[in-house]
Amino acid sequence: MSDVKVWLVGAGPGDPELLTLKAVRVLGQADVVLVDDLVNPAVLAHCPQARLVPVGKRGGCRSTPQAFIQRLMLRHARQGLRVVRLKGGDPGVFGRSGEEVAWLQAHGVACEVVNGITAGLAAATACGLPLTMRGITQGVTLVTGHTEHGDAPNWAALVAGGTTLLIYMGVAKLADIQAALLGAGMAADMPVALVEQASLPQQRQCQTTLSQLRDAARRFALRSPAILVVGRVVSLAQAEVLPEAEVAGHRTRAA
Amino acid sequence: MSDVKVWLVGAGPGDPELLTLKAVRVLGQADVVLVDDLVNPAVLAHCPQARLVPVGKRGGCRSTPQAFIQRLMLRHARQGLRVVRLKGGDPGVFGRSGEEVAWLQAHGVACEVVNGITAGLAAATACGLPLTMRGITQGVTLVTGHTEHGDAPNWAALVAGGTTLLIYMGVAKLADIQAALLGAGMAADMPVALVEQASLPQQRQCQTTLSQLRDAARRFALRSPAILVVGRVVSLAQAEVLPEAEVAGHRTRAA
Repeated sequence: MSDVKVWLVGAGPGDPELLTLKAVRVLGQADVVLVDDLVNPAVLAHCPQARLVPVGKRGGCRSTPQAFIQRLMLRHARQGLRVVRLKGGDPGVFGRSGEEVAWLQAHGVACEVVNGITAGLAAATACGLPLTMRGITQGVTLVTGHTEHGDAPNWAALVAGGTTLLIYMGVAKLADIQAALLGAGMAADMPVALVEQASLPQQRQCQTTLSQLRDAARRFALRSPAILVVGRVVSLAQAEVLPEAEVAGHRTRAA
Repeated sequence: MSDVKVWLVGAGPGDPELLTLKAVRVLGQADVVLVDDLVNPAVLAHCPQARLVPVGKRGGCRSTPQAFIQRLMLRHARQGLRVVRLKGGDPGVFGRSGEEVAWLQAHGVACEVVNGITAGLAAATACGLPLTMRGITQGVTLVTGHTEHGDAPNWAALVAGGTTLLIYMGVAKLADIQAALLGAGMAADMPVALVEQASLPQQRQCQTTLSQLRDAARRFALRSPAILVVGRVVSLAQAEVLPEAEVAGHRTRAA
């Protein structure tokens, strides 16, 4: 392995204060930062010295293909520049870091991944609910509702498993998710929290049930990026931060 | 809700650099910090002004019962002190934050939870492996191997679900976990990574398979706290950081 290296850094869920100290340090030493469009621009205050390259591909427009991003990292790294790939959340969770690390290593470039707070955990916290609770659930499962190649999660097994579900990128697939979970025998009254832009000032969240999921999302005008939290723990949400299917104010973050 | 408030703060997996900026700020404003024993003492450099109260209950000795910890938080908060409960990892993941938040709220005390990097995600990163990978797995499940009341996870459903498994607190239950996963039909050659003290200088990790799990853990002298990563993604681990069932050096964290 050469001494050429790329950093894959998690920017966290949105709140710039949820960045790690390590991410701040690595950003401060970067020459080039490739920025995903789910990253809060406020985070970039930590790398004023770096050249910023937006590489977003939000929605269907695919402005920057994955292969191009990878070649861009490689080219800059081979020029001896300190390259940071800045991703929303945690790079290892639905962040395609596996593909990027494997590709870069195959080209002789070392990678170091810096964890970030993943959006699902921040979404639960923002609603005032724990993800695990003794006597209620034994664990938590993070899945994506949007799969490019149709390889959907095994919803039946997830329902049988009884873990709290954190569903990423599910907004466009709400009808499918609702039907799959009901079809797999999940209770119609299973509580569901919908959390939009978790941890940011514009965060909105509402609570509903599985049977009301699609209607609630429509009334709430739910938009991406959002996390669905599905499970009995949702009923433990702090009442003052999680009203029933109506626009919620921003939870105060004064500390 | 009164203006009396307690902060439940995640200290992350161990590396003090994996603390969030928000955790640093809240610690710097604390009067009293109740410190779990899975917290790296180096983190306490951020709260030199605070009185520190160790409330560990590692292993079976239960030096500080949960009810006592809760009353301690309440008493200090009612005295007008800024109380921080500092926990390893993320407070919402096997951290009993749900119980503590509910109890404190029932006593008129507001709570604010500050997310931390949970150990399972850090363990995967430390091994150079992603938790999700298109075409290999649709998600990741965090479960605990140690359950006080015998309410074990539904291993059969977790195996059927096909997500990467991150098993917390599993060292004392390796035989049970191995038997349950094999009994549920998981492949005997399923790769497993064992990661001790993820993200710390003393981190050790090895790779094995499900059928070799107990033998490998014995040869490796695996000790708590450790995370088991079970799934096909483990085969993607960076070779240089994850040798086959032998003591591994600390992965360089130079950046």
